[in-house]
Amino acid sequence: MKIIHSDDNRLHFPQGELFGGELVTPFERPSRVEYILRRLKEVGLTDISAPEALDRAPVEKIHDAGYLDFLATCWDEWVSEGMKGEMIAASWPARRMVQKRPRNIDGKLGYYALAGETAITAGTWAAAQASCAVAQTAQRIVAGGARTAFALCRPPGHHAALDMYGGYCFLNNAAIAAQMFLDQGAGRVAVLDVDFHHGNGTQDIFYDRSDVLFCSLHGAPEDAFPYFLGYADETGAGAGEGFNLNLPMAPATPYSVWAEALETALARIRDYGPDAVIVSLGVDTFKEDPISFFRLESADFTDYGARIAGLGMPTLFVMEGGYAIDDIGVNTVNVLQGFLDA
Amino acid sequence: MKIIHSDDNRLHFPQGELFGGELVTPFERPSRVEYILRRLKEVGLTDISAPEALDRAPVEKIHDAGYLDFLATCWDEWVSEGMKGEMIAASWPARRMVQKRPRNIDGKLGYYALAGETAITAGTWAAAQASCAVAQTAQRIVAGGARTAFALCRPPGHHAALDMYGGYCFLNNAAIAAQMFLDQGAGRVAVLDVDFHHGNGTQDIFYDRSDVLFCSLHGAPEDAFPYFLGYADETGAGAGEGFNLNLPMAPATPYSVWAEALETALARIRDYGPDAVIVSLGVDTFKEDPISFFRLESADFTDYGARIAGLGMPTLFVMEGGYAIDDIGVNTVNVLQGFLDA
Repeated sequence: MKIIHSDDNRLHFPQGELFGGELVTPFERPSRVEYILRRLKEVGLTDISAPEALDRAPVEKIHDAGYLDFLATCWDEWVSEGMKGEMIAASWPARRMVQKRPRNIDGKLGYYALAGETAITAGTWAAAQASCAVAQTAQRIVAGGARTAFALCRPPGHHAALDMYGGYCFLNNAAIAAQMFLDQGAGRVAVLDVDFHHGNGTQDIFYDRSDVLFCSLHGAPEDAFPYFLGYADETGAGAGEGFNLNLPMAPATPYSVWAEALETALARIRDYGPDAVIVSLGVDTFKEDPISFFRLESADFTDYGARIAGLGMPTLFVMEGGYAIDDIGVNTVNVLQGFLDA
Repeated sequence: MKIIHSDDNRLHFPQGELFGGELVTPFERPSRVEYILRRLKEVGLTDISAPEALDRAPVEKIHDAGYLDFLATCWDEWVSEGMKGEMIAASWPARRMVQKRPRNIDGKLGYYALAGETAITAGTWAAAQASCAVAQTAQRIVAGGARTAFALCRPPGHHAALDMYGGYCFLNNAAIAAQMFLDQGAGRVAVLDVDFHHGNGTQDIFYDRSDVLFCSLHGAPEDAFPYFLGYADETGAGAGEGFNLNLPMAPATPYSVWAEALETALARIRDYGPDAVIVSLGVDTFKEDPISFFRLESADFTDYGARIAGLGMPTLFVMEGGYAIDDIGVNTVNVLQGFLDA
């Protein structure tokens, strides 16, 4: 199995994450990648390489041009305004306010943010682009005929919407990879999001399209971030009606229940008949995850990797979340091994 | 001139305000009130008393019931969830997300917030209610026949919307006072908001009503908080069409320009013919204000107090913002003296 990884992920490591009213060391940190790499090597998955250069074209098909310009220039603008900290949004266009982009950098920050836990730093844009290049390179491997590949992306991507960052995400790596499959000739692509958190960004991007099926298993929005998307009645709009499947689950959901939801999603994907499957792979469904509430055991990750393999479809794994760092390596690699050994 | 003030304002003093990506000592702090009180006494305005008990009825006419329940209970819920810091919203229902209130306290916090600089603490609800009682008590003095009264409110109110807090505001004191004038028999009330920041909350509350005229002079939303409301083309909706007047102004606006805008607002108020005028009095238009960008000198505050007096209408002053603490006393009291001496 080919694995793509970039050391440039380390360029993004904010000092602070706004959590519980305090600025704490971010749960989403570079060591997550180090633990996954260590475990990959332990089990002999050592075909690891660096990404090719970023292809901007599919990025520009997925994200708003103004948003991309903002990500590329915001840090310099922030510093030149004399701001001393990292960039954290402190106001936003709330209910009944207007959706116009301000001129002021603090206002623009709020305009392009969907959450405030995620700080932008000097190295964020470089790291986000490197992460996207990781996904793109792995996508080409699967598009080239491989059964699977693993994009060890960091920062993750599934919360990044058309024109908003948040939830640790800036560029939607999975969505960009889906667009590449389509641009290369695929008729249909499925994105299966098994991260604990709803993939609001991916849903947002493909909500009115039928060429990408989005299926997400996640903590119910009443109880879990991102709170304001991910309900079961969000089924798509316009041409996309019926091509968005949300499977929200309650606190303390055990694997037996989660696996049933997975089978529902897999059945929907089989029915859809995509040319490729992209798995938004977050392992924060683990019982010890510090910011999540499902109850999966490490062995369950192996089991569901095998179930995904049962689709018999070209499958690209794209790394998303997972914050129980001591176990992130085992749990992530268990999914890959379950898939490979099936 | 009767002045109403409550020491309970001190119950709200967060340790941190999210500003420039850092948690700093809040610009909106109890000493603001102390400096105003000192100056009032210096000039002989010593008819200062405590507020009567809060009347909930008008509060419930202005704010959403779920929002008021949230303010009353959120701190206990936050603490019982094990959160260690003060309450600062870290996610919110952004563009194209759903406006459903989550069950989780962190989600509810984002649902009811329009900005993240404002922390909720153990004493916030008590202080907000005391501040509202200050406005209510001063309102009754004007309704009872006095030419004017000064509600030395803290925390301020004009950013608080129907169902959202933010910008240091929780209950919209000016809006609640306006509702009281109407409930007591007034046909029309005007709110003149001279705070540097747009009174987005007051606009939100009365946007579809013709019984309250809202006029606001403020920093242009392209450049100034709250960024996402306050454009000149926001003129009201439905029955409220034509009863909302926004006068946004550019960075470095001097008093000569500001005073012209004031005359535009005063002419509109004269034309409207209200039974009472409520002045949302923020003195952050001062040239030294640390978070604002107009260029008023201290003497200008006296001048515009006199211009407001020229309306010849019963006038309730309700304190809003102003963060140049060394000068907040002089500037605030200059407005009152300008009014009284006219």
